[in-house]
Amino acid sequence: MSAYPDGLRELVDEYLSRLRFSSEPATEGLDGAMRYSLLAGGKRVRPVLCLASARSAGMDSGAVLPAAAAIELIHTYSLIHDDLPAMDDDDLRRGRETSHVRFGEDVAILAGDGLFAEAINHFLAHQEGEPENVAAALRCLASATGVGGMVGGQYIDVADDGRLGAEALRKLHELKTGKLIAASVLVPQLLAGADDAATMPYRRYADELGVLFQIVDDILDVTGSDAQLGKPHGSDERHGKVTYVSLYGLERARELAAESHAAARDALVSIEGNTAELELITDFIRTRQT
Amino acid sequence: MSAYPDGLRELVDEYLSRLRFSSEPATEGLDGAMRYSLLAGGKRVRPVLCLASARSAGMDSGAVLPAAAAIELIHTYSLIHDDLPAMDDDDLRRGRETSHVRFGEDVAILAGDGLFAEAINHFLAHQEGEPENVAAALRCLASATGVGGMVGGQYIDVADDGRLGAEALRKLHELKTGKLIAASVLVPQLLAGADDAATMPYRRYADELGVLFQIVDDILDVTGSDAQLGKPHGSDERHGKVTYVSLYGLERARELAAESHAAARDALVSIEGNTAELELITDFIRTRQT
Repeated sequence: MSAYPDGLRELVDEYLSRLRFSSEPATEGLDGAMRYSLLAGGKRVRPVLCLASARSAGMDSGAVLPAAAAIELIHTYSLIHDDLPAMDDDDLRRGRETSHVRFGEDVAILAGDGLFAEAINHFLAHQEGEPENVAAALRCLASATGVGGMVGGQYIDVADDGRLGAEALRKLHELKTGKLIAASVLVPQLLAGADDAATMPYRRYADELGVLFQIVDDILDVTGSDAQLGKPHGSDERHGKVTYVSLYGLERARELAAESHAAARDALVSIEGNTAELELITDFIRTRQT
Repeated sequence: MSAYPDGLRELVDEYLSRLRFSSEPATEGLDGAMRYSLLAGGKRVRPVLCLASARSAGMDSGAVLPAAAAIELIHTYSLIHDDLPAMDDDDLRRGRETSHVRFGEDVAILAGDGLFAEAINHFLAHQEGEPENVAAALRCLASATGVGGMVGGQYIDVADDGRLGAEALRKLHELKTGKLIAASVLVPQLLAGADDAATMPYRRYADELGVLFQIVDDILDVTGSDAQLGKPHGSDERHGKVTYVSLYGLERARELAAESHAAARDALVSIEGNTAELELITDFIRTRQT
């Protein structure tokens, strides 16, 4: 496994562990359910990307921690809703019971809803920056979450009857996974008030990284062990889902991952600034085993 | 029934009817599910309140339509999720099949998620105002939606085993219904940059209005016909829920509604500006039959 900017992950974990969402006894149970999923571990790829993107542009990583946390809250909310019986019906996530197994479906739905609302709240309450820039960054994040992003991608996924073609598959993942990964990279640039020209190489990098992330995800679903994944492997096939592996076969999917990795690394070259941490994350995303 | 500012409702309905959430074929089905619930009719109490609040402070109603629409999107999202089988399991809403009956549970969950994200999006993309004021108004709305508002109130509701006391019941409704109604009144004032002193009478009015709204809701669930409500009456009792009626009896609940109505009207007196439309809405909320 490649190195990973563990210092940044520790910053994120420490920040997330201090979050509380309830200020009164009646909703402490909801706060507990939200933090159960939020603090289940993981590589924190999105918030770490956010911090690394900030640092590549000369910002202090602490300056974007509220935005990075908001992104992880939104990612966690999407996992809780995706795992629901009416969606993927998964019982295990990161080696632990999923939210609805632990707390019941009603509380799981509300834990997801609550994480989304509190993400917006946290962003607006704690993210510093020029008001115009904060608004632009939050708009990028909300876009990446809505019909033109995560939720739209999940809709294409549940509406999939196993007959998606290559073009539709790419669209599905561009929305479901790619947009939030891209937002993780772009939000710090928008907070800094970067113009379109300065943002463009980040955008190219982020889009490619989203594709790479998904191809590797599909490969791991086939080749990973249950213990590595923290959930039963082969769940895509069981759900009759079209993946890069089902569409292209394992060998070609691995080639596509290599091509996508090269393209992402190539995009980093045109970014002015120190992209060492972004390079580490890019390599990690290709070689990760979980 | 009292008069209602129908001109404002028409403005809202017209504005909502023009909204589209998808820009590509793959997610048109999701857009359709979102608009199915959004355009199911209703009095539009929250966005109409928002417009009336703006007008009482001398603003043009058109100036807050994006915020008003965002509030109605959020309200609609909450109805879709509340109706889910894992929550209240209601099949009818405003005389039509609920979202999960019509589109399936998976799409209903996503339609709710999508409406929430697009509400934030729409607010940030279209609501004009000083960036600081727009941020303050959006934060008020996100707060009213999260653990300290709607989602937290719904959590207390689903966690209720039928033994809530009077204090807990008031808290439940303050969060679940009251905060979003209060936000509808406060958002225009925050957009206008009103200071705490100028906002205070609006706050007092809005809080009381939320209480009034809920008492009347509980009364109507007992006294209304299915046709009037657009859903089966008596559903609170069937779900074993504590309500103002179950706690105080019908007669005392009616007295409480009268007291709450008087207090809300009283709060309006201390608002400088033309509160005629707010008075109409307040009277309507007390005397409404649906």
